[in-house]
Amino acid sequence: MKILRVNMDRLELNWEPVPPEYERFGGRALIAKVLLTEVPPQCEPLGPYNKLILAPGLLGGTNLSSSARLSVGGKSPLTGGVKEANCGGDAGSHLIRLGIKAVVVEGQPRDGKLYLLYISRQGAELLPADEWRGLGTYATVAKAQERWGEHCTVISIGPAGEMGMTAAAIACTGYEEQVSRMAARGGLGALMGSKRLKAVVLDASGGEMPPLADPELFRAAARRFATELAENPRTGRQGSMHLYGTSAIVEAVNEMGAFPTRNFSAGQFEKIENLTGPRLRETALARGGKVGTRCMANCVIACCNQFVDPDGNPIVATLQYETIGMLGSNLGIGTLDEVARLNRICNDLGLDSIETGAALGVAAEAGLARFGDAASFEALLNEIAAGSVLGRVLGQGAVVAGRVLGISRVPAAKGQAMPAYDPRALKGNGVTYATSPMGADHTAGNAFGVRDKVDPLAATGQCEASLRLQLDVISLDSTGLCLFARPPVFSDPQLMVDLINGRFGWGWTVADLQEYKKTVLKMELEFNRQAGLTSADARIPEYMRREPLPPHNTVFDVPDAELDEIFSAL
Amino acid sequence: MKILRVNMDRLELNWEPVPPEYERFGGRALIAKVLLTEVPPQCEPLGPYNKLILAPGLLGGTNLSSSARLSVGGKSPLTGGVKEANCGGDAGSHLIRLGIKAVVVEGQPRDGKLYLLYISRQGAELLPADEWRGLGTYATVAKAQERWGEHCTVISIGPAGEMGMTAAAIACTGYEEQVSRMAARGGLGALMGSKRLKAVVLDASGGEMPPLADPELFRAAARRFATELAENPRTGRQGSMHLYGTSAIVEAVNEMGAFPTRNFSAGQFEKIENLTGPRLRETALARGGKVGTRCMANCVIACCNQFVDPDGNPIVATLQYETIGMLGSNLGIGTLDEVARLNRICNDLGLDSIETGAALGVAAEAGLARFGDAASFEALLNEIAAGSVLGRVLGQGAVVAGRVLGISRVPAAKGQAMPAYDPRALKGNGVTYATSPMGADHTAGNAFGVRDKVDPLAATGQCEASLRLQLDVISLDSTGLCLFARPPVFSDPQLMVDLINGRFGWGWTVADLQEYKKTVLKMELEFNRQAGLTSADARIPEYMRREPLPPHNTVFDVPDAELDEIFSAL
Repeated sequence: MKILRVNMDRLELNWEPVPPEYERFGGRALIAKVLLTEVPPQCEPLGPYNKLILAPGLLGGTNLSSSARLSVGGKSPLTGGVKEANCGGDAGSHLIRLGIKAVVVEGQPRDGKLYLLYISRQGAELLPADEWRGLGTYATVAKAQERWGEHCTVISIGPAGEMGMTAAAIACTGYEEQVSRMAARGGLGALMGSKRLKAVVLDASGGEMPPLADPELFRAAARRFATELAENPRTGRQGSMHLYGTSAIVEAVNEMGAFPTRNFSAGQFEKIENLTGPRLRETALARGGKVGTRCMANCVIACCNQFVDPDGNPIVATLQYETIGMLGSNLGIGTLDEVARLNRICNDLGLDSIETGAALGVAAEAGLARFGDAASFEALLNEIAAGSVLGRVLGQGAVVAGRVLGISRVPAAKGQAMPAYDPRALKGNGVTYATSPMGADHTAGNAFGVRDKVDPLAATGQCEASLRLQLDVISLDSTGLCLFARPPVFSDPQLMVDLINGRFGWGWTVADLQEYKKTVLKMELEFNRQAGLTSADARIPEYMRREPLPPHNTVFDVPDAELDEIFSAL
Repeated sequence: MKILRVNMDRLELNWEPVPPEYERFGGRALIAKVLLTEVPPQCEPLGPYNKLILAPGLLGGTNLSSSARLSVGGKSPLTGGVKEANCGGDAGSHLIRLGIKAVVVEGQPRDGKLYLLYISRQGAELLPADEWRGLGTYATVAKAQERWGEHCTVISIGPAGEMGMTAAAIACTGYEEQVSRMAARGGLGALMGSKRLKAVVLDASGGEMPPLADPELFRAAARRFATELAENPRTGRQGSMHLYGTSAIVEAVNEMGAFPTRNFSAGQFEKIENLTGPRLRETALARGGKVGTRCMANCVIACCNQFVDPDGNPIVATLQYETIGMLGSNLGIGTLDEVARLNRICNDLGLDSIETGAALGVAAEAGLARFGDAASFEALLNEIAAGSVLGRVLGQGAVVAGRVLGISRVPAAKGQAMPAYDPRALKGNGVTYATSPMGADHTAGNAFGVRDKVDPLAATGQCEASLRLQLDVISLDSTGLCLFARPPVFSDPQLMVDLINGRFGWGWTVADLQEYKKTVLKMELEFNRQAGLTSADARIPEYMRREPLPPHNTVFDVPDAELDEIFSAL
């Protein structure tokens, strides 16, 4: 395994052996390690000293189910801190099969021109890509696959990333859909844009599965993992995760009163029945769309969908829960067709649908669009596409939009927009938004999953729950495993230890794995500390402590002092 | 003496005795004390928990020359930290003669309507002012003085402050000019706007000079102070400060190569001869304008000017050095007429000409205006006046403008634009910009004055010089004294001690005064620490460490480690 260094200043590629101190890190963990080791924490996120890191998880490249996720990272231009965002698709697996532990992109080209990185078994090369300028992600994928074949994986940015918009995401092709997977959060598309890297194209043909230190142990564990996923009542073939994907939880979050509605002014949406998982499934199927597809070749769950218009033409794949919340109810929009259309535009521009949805909600509150009027929001997305001043404001995300437009009701933490769970009615998520080194992020420790154990409305007990969840997801984000694959590995921690030992022969114990998670979290917190983030950045916006959220009419009331102590036991 | 509390939430006024722990603080020092005591450091600057504080200096209200400055403060919406900005005029003196040690404005009106605070010997009242909405500061002053008399002092905001723009200033009438004095920095106009306070009108008729604890001591010191100012070769009648005001230094700063030119891309301007102090004086005089006027009744120096158009119609008073730099050379503009016209618009909108000049420079770099083309910049100011999205972006100041427009060359520190000294050629100012609790501020410790003692281009020795200057100005900012009045009090520290003891009878020594300055600085740093500012906020922008500044082709190279240690001896 090598690290591929891409120096955009000198336009040079270097294959380096993996430094011993990086060896045990993968995905999110490796990003934390590289950032803390190599990147000045106070550097300007879009300047030459930041680095863009693509890192597969430790278990990627194998035939383990649901393990091919790609982690992307760097210092976030949105939060100013450490950032890892990961996406489905086979990119993580393909990188490992190309012998690559991480791609580290450094510097900036002096000529400001766009480039493209092509990697195959024959090697890697940087190619001029100025004629790709301004292409949407769909066209970028089409153009890349036309040139290098449909089997290639394409990791790309759209116009939003090229324009340095901090709501920009990095798009990645999936196994059964194209441009469906987004490493969405933290403005990493703008970081890739600042490196002037339009796309990374992977041709993993002829690539090999990585060696297994203890094939028997690994295979037994992998089989058990797959079997348990297949038999689990939620991830199995009759389970809601397979049937509806992430949209399975729309009704439950609305029922809890935590479904963001009209810029987080209510927690329940009156048109909820139009946005549910079953409605999504039946609509897609009735029109000839797809459900139950896979983003990765080796996935037992198969949670994806392809949403199509009434004539059966693909609009977007996969239409996800967070998007339904942030581009749907948060904008007062009550049809999946409208949500899917806005999602399609975001995907094509290379925009995070969460950050963008929040920014559009703020814009509506400022009178620039009308809640419920999808066309008025589409007009704002067109401003982003055009790079107009208004578009650039919105493209910077919710916080900048609020500041410029004079709106104080901005649902964000650490400069990053909240995903689709109002923290006043799911307070554990408020704790995660405030305290996670990632900022407001639903994948950094989502308390929805423990709502039956921890009262979502209680002011107490949330920090303990959030910390446990924050640590647990680190093991997923660092191994390339999908959040949906958590039931088997969370119910028996030995299973992940067996997988890691089977793959690498490190002889880890469950305690070692627990320590590893803590190590990663501490590295991330340390990077943020050095970057200048403090307890002042670990806060929920003031208005959420003052303004009660219907229908429970609760405010976020976890004491600041508790937020400040959450990591004291690490 | 009382503190006048203005509760904008309940629309109530309360006259409170001065708490003993506030007694020895005035101006900037009192603002630091009130902020640290009463304002949650992590509050949203434009939210209800921040406070707007108007505080005269300790020596205000007496007949001491140059002592009537008004300090205005709060948590800055621009820097996120402590902020004091002060302005000339007699407001500080008038407040004290009305028996007021400070006006503290709290909360926000629930109805969002505008109000006006009128204070006279008969008392204070909050008046509805919705019909003043959108008025420029000139019209506001005219309307107020039409109603309450020309002798009234008017402290007001323009449309920029009403719209919450963080480049907004607070305007104050002066002794011989109207709306000439600006408490400009830190976005305090937006803070006043967030309180929905359009203006504070002071009628000090019948007000009395404050008592003197030791009249003989005070009067002797005051006489000596005035005499030394009058006889000083710089502040006396033949001195450059009297003849040219702040514009006296235009040539010298240009000569040093530190005069910001075209968004801080050069340190010398080819049209400098059109912008000098002598040119300003002769032009004003030839057209029937004024020079050598006073902003305060009791000022020996009389440094002000009234710049007029070729027909003798007043354009702006006083046309200042920082404005000539930031709205002149920084925009490539080489005539005083054009600078004065842009300045007039800024004053009327209630905008800080420094922050606005920097934002316009960034906008020009983004292609939205053309360096040297004053009309193109006036068009941008018209956008601000109209409250368009572009106008709102620029009205937020240089940092937001840079972020939205994708420009990384943004001359700012702690979120606040640099004044008209490029820190690459006057490195002591770079240290002050980076480390002062006030952010980039020319009044917080300006090393121009020590250029003969500390090599402006040297990397070493700057921190010591900056710290000394930072401490010294605190004594001015806390007593209401003008920066121009520093020669007598800096050459003999006993003089200020005598003035304070003569006024209050505190029996201070020079050491006590020195300790006082340190106490204030430490309070400000502590507020900032609690507000979440760290060493990451004590930095000069990356590009200034990389990009050499002509003509010396130097970069800012004071080591970060030295910046971080500057206050260790406090």
